Amino acid sequence: MEDRYLKGGFTLPGEAGYEGLTLELARRWGADVIRDSDGTKLSDEIVNAGYRIYSTICIIREHNAFAMAHPDAQQQTFLSSDAALAVEDTLVIQPLNGYFEEQFELNDTPDALPYWQVWDRTAEQEVPRDHWHYENGRVTVTHCVPFHRYTVSFLCWRIWEEINMYNHTTNHWTSEHLRQLDPRHPAAWDYLKNWLEDWCERNPQTNVIRLTSLFYNFVWIFGCDERRRSRYVDWASYDFTVSPAALRAFEAEYGYALTAEDFINRGQLQPTHCVPTAHKRDWMDFVQRFVSERARELVEIIHRHGKQAYVFYDDSWVGLEPNGRYFADVGFDGLIKCVFSGFECRLCANAKVPVHELRFHPYLFPVGLGGLPTFMEGGHPERDAMSYWLHVRRALARKCVDRIGLGGYLHLTEGHPAFVDAIEMMAKQFRHLKELHEQGAPAALPLTVAVVHTWGELRAWTLSGHFHETDSHVLIHLLEALSGLPVNVRFIALEELSEETLCGVDVVLNAGRAGDAWSGGSAWQDERLVTALTRFVHEGGAFLGVEEPTACPGGDSFFAMAHVLGVDRDDGRYACHAPWAAGETEQKPFTIYPNALGADPCLRVTAPDTQVLCMKNGVPQMTLRAFGSGHAAYLSGFVYAPENARMLLDLLLCLTGKAAEGAPLAASPVVEAAWFPFSATLVLMNNANDPVSTAVCCQGRTIEAELQPLEMRFMEIKD
Amino acid sequence: MEDRYLKGGFTLPGEAGYEGLTLELARRWGADVIRDSDGTKLSDEIVNAGYRIYSTICIIREHNAFAMAHPDAQQQTFLSSDAALAVEDTLVIQPLNGYFEEQFELNDTPDALPYWQVWDRTAEQEVPRDHWHYENGRVTVTHCVPFHRYTVSFLCWRIWEEINMYNHTTNHWTSEHLRQLDPRHPAAWDYLKNWLEDWCERNPQTNVIRLTSLFYNFVWIFGCDERRRSRYVDWASYDFTVSPAALRAFEAEYGYALTAEDFINRGQLQPTHCVPTAHKRDWMDFVQRFVSERARELVEIIHRHGKQAYVFYDDSWVGLEPNGRYFADVGFDGLIKCVFSGFECRLCANAKVPVHELRFHPYLFPVGLGGLPTFMEGGHPERDAMSYWLHVRRALARKCVDRIGLGGYLHLTEGHPAFVDAIEMMAKQFRHLKELHEQGAPAALPLTVAVVHTWGELRAWTLSGHFHETDSHVLIHLLEALSGLPVNVRFIALEELSEETLCGVDVVLNAGRAGDAWSGGSAWQDERLVTALTRFVHEGGAFLGVEEPTACPGGDSFFAMAHVLGVDRDDGRYACHAPWAAGETEQKPFTIYPNALGADPCLRVTAPDTQVLCMKNGVPQMTLRAFGSGHAAYLSGFVYAPENARMLLDLLLCLTGKAAEGAPLAASPVVEAAWFPFSATLVLMNNANDPVSTAVCCQGRTIEAELQPLEMRFMEIKD
Repeated sequence: MEDRYLKGGFTLPGEAGYEGLTLELARRWGADVIRDSDGTKLSDEIVNAGYRIYSTICIIREHNAFAMAHPDAQQQTFLSSDAALAVEDTLVIQPLNGYFEEQFELNDTPDALPYWQVWDRTAEQEVPRDHWHYENGRVTVTHCVPFHRYTVSFLCWRIWEEINMYNHTTNHWTSEHLRQLDPRHPAAWDYLKNWLEDWCERNPQTNVIRLTSLFYNFVWIFGCDERRRSRYVDWASYDFTVSPAALRAFEAEYGYALTAEDFINRGQLQPTHCVPTAHKRDWMDFVQRFVSERARELVEIIHRHGKQAYVFYDDSWVGLEPNGRYFADVGFDGLIKCVFSGFECRLCANAKVPVHELRFHPYLFPVGLGGLPTFMEGGHPERDAMSYWLHVRRALARKCVDRIGLGGYLHLTEGHPAFVDAIEMMAKQFRHLKELHEQGAPAALPLTVAVVHTWGELRAWTLSGHFHETDSHVLIHLLEALSGLPVNVRFIALEELSEETLCGVDVVLNAGRAGDAWSGGSAWQDERLVTALTRFVHEGGAFLGVEEPTACPGGDSFFAMAHVLGVDRDDGRYACHAPWAAGETEQKPFTIYPNALGADPCLRVTAPDTQVLCMKNGVPQMTLRAFGSGHAAYLSGFVYAPENARMLLDLLLCLTGKAAEGAPLAASPVVEAAWFPFSATLVLMNNANDPVSTAVCCQGRTIEAELQPLEMRFMEIKD
Repeated sequence: MEDRYLKGGFTLPGEAGYEGLTLELARRWGADVIRDSDGTKLSDEIVNAGYRIYSTICIIREHNAFAMAHPDAQQQTFLSSDAALAVEDTLVIQPLNGYFEEQFELNDTPDALPYWQVWDRTAEQEVPRDHWHYENGRVTVTHCVPFHRYTVSFLCWRIWEEINMYNHTTNHWTSEHLRQLDPRHPAAWDYLKNWLEDWCERNPQTNVIRLTSLFYNFVWIFGCDERRRSRYVDWASYDFTVSPAALRAFEAEYGYALTAEDFINRGQLQPTHCVPTAHKRDWMDFVQRFVSERARELVEIIHRHGKQAYVFYDDSWVGLEPNGRYFADVGFDGLIKCVFSGFECRLCANAKVPVHELRFHPYLFPVGLGGLPTFMEGGHPERDAMSYWLHVRRALARKCVDRIGLGGYLHLTEGHPAFVDAIEMMAKQFRHLKELHEQGAPAALPLTVAVVHTWGELRAWTLSGHFHETDSHVLIHLLEALSGLPVNVRFIALEELSEETLCGVDVVLNAGRAGDAWSGGSAWQDERLVTALTRFVHEGGAFLGVEEPTACPGGDSFFAMAHVLGVDRDDGRYACHAPWAAGETEQKPFTIYPNALGADPCLRVTAPDTQVLCMKNGVPQMTLRAFGSGHAAYLSGFVYAPENARMLLDLLLCLTGKAAEGAPLAASPVVEAAWFPFSATLVLMNNANDPVSTAVCCQGRTIEAELQPLEMRFMEIKD
């Protein structure tokens, strides 16, 4: 490995009291930046060692004195009580029963009570206000219908900042519970701006303020019972942005008022995975503008002090979507994204911001995000790091970022030399990849995939949180596969799907379950959508549907695009209808990996000319069909694995009739390749835990390579 | 076996040309009646041998000369063309394309054309009549929206009686295709009545006319392509009853007109397994009354000639439901039901008619209904007969019928002595059971199960056809289990569910898939239903939900009764909600057979006090919960097997807190027992293919029994 890959583009978490270790690892890993972390400090010795310094600030947290003095400046949320059964005509409900009393406190102020509601959930009707009253933490409902169920929707204060709460409950922290301020509260906002001014003045050594993140945490609702401690978590929802002040501002601007039920939604809230109501969409836009405007004020303060402002995209990030409409307005200097997966690299790389930085996992913490040990007895941090790197490097081979780094307690690396070695290797390989990208983009196929779903570009390269939090959704597996394939990827919202937006698209991909935001649900009731997509395929385009694509109530098929796919799902409507008898095609156009697919017993061939590429238990799970001048394919599921990603690439080529010549292709399905024409470098990645010997077609030549387990190899190819 | 079990209650299919065989088997099987069958005749020698004679008549068939002379007297149906894609503004559709041209002929008479419709299926809108015209078998649609799909709904003549068509295509018959007359056609009806008068006069030897069945066949639509020959089959639907005359009569009576779309329903028709529209319900009632009135006229003719009228409940049975509102009005002397299963025996036994007769399977035909060989190379008719008998005998031990019999070509039994022996044994055991019932009913538990679904009593003890035709529906498995259990069973329509109808009920059972007629679909949106059932359980009743019970759109849970069950199914709404953590209960209240259950990955515990009796892959599949003074249980599926039926019985006892003492119970789950107190006889049935040694608790005594494989044993128990 050449010297030029030894240093740069690496952010190291320093730790006071471990100055020697800090400087030693800064050297080993080639750091050019040292940062602090949640729970660590930097000492003067570290700060003055000649590195650029990032300082982490969670702007709304660590102001407990102000919060205690101004309890009405704290953040809030709507909650719904669990449903209570009436057995006579009066019912008493304690709204917070079942919730974690350390997280929530009723907001029964005169400002808040008008927003409370009581609902008859059996009849799905709001109970008239003169049929209930509130007193001393209890709601008494009168005129009940016996054996109906009732809920109270109420506002409450969130009295424990959620990330601090997580660290206490997971990592056994015992310090004071931190509170969080709502920047919409005028006094709080003045206070926060002054505090930031003051901080900047007191910390001249800091080059970059690393905001973690801005104002509102993603939704994380704890219960009082250990058997359901984390009752609800949605990484991309907006419930924690609510307050009477915000509701009033919304009403003033939009001309209509939101009610508790717009958030509570029959107790189900509105998970990001579900199709949002129009009201929720309005609320999100309203919050995004507010967050962006206030963030810009903070960034201006930071810039005025000669510092840069990077934002960490996690925790209290809500309203900050890097691919959203208002992100670029804020003026951030950098975006930092923690990554387990390839799609997260693409998400970061895709953002319009000067510097893109990845924070690698594992975080230097005793316990990982999934709850398993990392830097403690029973943990294997080097193994974890390598397993994430396998996902990350293939995405970096497609689109690079500017920097990488780590976070947490540096001293925890002691006793883990294999981890230190692994990070050293990754840092060098990252710098090599970055250099290749700087010399010129890697070769890509002239093939553009448009992922179509409810959210479009707003949720480009993500669903809601990390892979392991969303891996029951098929789309995250497809995004992970696509993140390392030599194809172009776009994201189009269903409401924006039209002949115009499909211009330049080769394959439209829709993947999700009936009614969810990814499949699209009732959006497909819009005939214009179906008509545009039907025309697109008929005139030569391709459609790829996965799991329950375009599923929609009210149509003459379960999949709105069944007439194109030639396959449909029986939700009961076909009870007496025979499917077309169809056996598995003998001549497969490419290698099929059945483990990639689902095993849905309810699928059925609905056209005589549908080709079945894979059946399970006599039921088609993967099909292909010509339609007009185009093609359509259906997969009952998709699980990310290297060979499955290869099958997806083969399928995209097959659907579009394009040759793979534009990009290098290995004979082995577990080896991926990227070709950098400007530096004449072929990058080979063995995704297998075994050595692999494979031929690779690249630029009309066949190169034989023997790769070590998991090896990433850079090969200059001279003519 | 005593002499008194050697003869009686047995109907033998005779066959001219095989007089010796006929009389020999009549003796062996103890026949008291000889019948003809579809395709066989009786000779004088047989007719005069001293047996009562049944003659089979299919009243609407075998009148080809009349049908050719009066083609407008033939039966009809609505069909929909397959959807055709418009690529410009004009589209030509040949409506019958894809259908079996030997079954259908367009009805483009001036009487019929006004009922035709053209639909834009992409927009789900009817195309205005001035945007299409019909000529020479083709419909031309103008003003099309490019890339919308269009269908034509049309009337057509059914020119081949469906059972005859089935026999030609399955059993390679080559005789003339038989046509069928519509009794609603005045000339045809006069003709048919005269024909029956004449037939009765010419056949004085016949004692019983066995009507097979009445007028309208169940819906059976053939396609032109071998890969989808049987396009649609619904054993309980009414599409084949339609005609312009019937539609006009309906409109005159009901004050509103039905359209083609009421039948076509977006091309999906209205399978019995789906929740019917209000219009379909009206049409069914209209047809039931017509069928019952016309059938009564036929029965009166038959009675006037001193003969009896039995009806075979199959084939052209539509409108004749034995548990329907008008069946008793017809005045039939007997009902004959062919049986594979226990539930079919209960269906027959439940009908209000003097004589109940079962026709056993296999039918004496080369090929069975499932399409596999029976009386030909590769067939095992004795094994088939025994497998059906295992199901039938346990139902007969609960409720007996009056007669049994066979049908088909008797000569096919030659070369199958094991079959002849098996039928001889079954006939004797049947007579013994019948004698026990005549002496007094068997002991039953004081436990009443109410099966609640859309159809209620109209479809008591059936869904739509035989077990093997409906075995993807969980309810048929439960009915099969219940048919042999010592409990009382009622059927209640959801719209009739109330405190009054639940009086005397111990367990309410709802079992089906979301939106189907068995689960009930939108019926559960009626809060009164949910309230009544919630109260029923809260006040001490029990609710048993299976698969997707009470599933209903629009509520705050997927199962409308989730608040009682303590379990729900995640259709996406719980994407971010954690379930209650729950492990499998260690102390099971009875033996659980996991194979009985499904393996639904989407189930979740929604209450802290739900007991999980069985989990698969960490997901609950069987749960139990106390609710108020009552109990609720959930099963993710149910597959009929003897031990699973026993588990169901144990569950019913557990849910109701009742002791099993009222009825005998074997220690072995594969042995069933019935106790006839009036004859002090214990009947033991070994359902296993292996010998079983078991203890049986009966009347406070423990009886040890060693049973041969599949043995049925009658034991007199003396004090």
